[in-house]
Amino acid sequence: MIQGEPSLWERGAERVLASTRVLELRSVRYRHPKRGTDREFMVAHAPDWVNVVARTPDGRLVLVRQFRFGSNELSLEIPGGVMEAGEDPVAAGVRELLEETGYGGGAARLLGSVYPNPAIMDNKCHIIFVDGVVPTGPLDWDDDEEIQVSTAPAGEVIAWARSGRIVHSLSVAALLLFEGVGRI
Amino acid sequence: MIQGEPSLWERGAERVLASTRVLELRSVRYRHPKRGTDREFMVAHAPDWVNVVARTPDGRLVLVRQFRFGSNELSLEIPGGVMEAGEDPVAAGVRELLEETGYGGGAARLLGSVYPNPAIMDNKCHIIFVDGVVPTGPLDWDDDEEIQVSTAPAGEVIAWARSGRIVHSLSVAALLLFEGVGRI
Repeated sequence: MIQGEPSLWERGAERVLASTRVLELRSVRYRHPKRGTDREFMVAHAPDWVNVVARTPDGRLVLVRQFRFGSNELSLEIPGGVMEAGEDPVAAGVRELLEETGYGGGAARLLGSVYPNPAIMDNKCHIIFVDGVVPTGPLDWDDDEEIQVSTAPAGEVIAWARSGRIVHSLSVAALLLFEGVGRI
Repeated sequence: MIQGEPSLWERGAERVLASTRVLELRSVRYRHPKRGTDREFMVAHAPDWVNVVARTPDGRLVLVRQFRFGSNELSLEIPGGVMEAGEDPVAAGVRELLEETGYGGGAARLLGSVYPNPAIMDNKCHIIFVDGVVPTGPLDWDDDEEIQVSTAPAGEVIAWARSGRIVHSLSVAALLLFEGVGRI
């Protein structure tokens, strides 16, 4: 069963509902191309993000554990952060990895890109794989970051993504995408 | 390398920055337990969501394709939606599947739960697996929903999640979690 192609709404004017350090909440006017009707939909605008699967020469992945203000609890995740304007995704991943964990070196490449939530957010999250990282530098945390850095065997970390010990959807998606290529 | 346990911030008063049909943007005051300093962090409050991996008796998964106002493009995804107050996640998944696609029946269970984004959102997304679904009922779309329903072999859909044809992070996470159990 396949119905016809869904309509592409035409994006119109927008207005800012709220502006924060992390995202800007906008109300965007969209016009339905066939019905000609207008409606406003909420869109959260944010810069693109990067998530980093970083593997040491002995096959361990670098993890971060930190307090998260949305879930109000500690969360075990892969490193990541916000891209700077004009920054290349791979460079951003390498930078965030180094700043958050002190790990660097190795060979970095883009594993894939997803929309964190295309229904209500306009940004992408790029998944970077850095193979062969070692502790190289001092940490450089943002204000209020307090990060527990650790490593664990890749297979174990992937099992944690499947079992619910890792619960950030973007970490889960990245680790399971990595699973498909990481053994090569 | 493992440093000490990150601090658990203490959640305090909050104020609403903006309220929309989809989410409420809040500024929440958190106090650092050791430093004693206060800071406000943005938290997007939303009801929990469900995502549904629905498999037909001949091993195909049910897909939806629709215009997404965040990404401003069509997106191929698994069915899903917003839970109602007090609703059970499995019941919500079965309801959303039927409303969006007309597929029903089969055996439904919870595959797992993730936080869409524990850094900035407080809600969870529950991943429901419904095995043995068949077309059973009429569609019941929300206003402005216009959904192209299709099915494809499970292995092909999982390959699309890995290759970037499916780009919604929650669909990717759900499909790759399903991959770990769906063959059983």
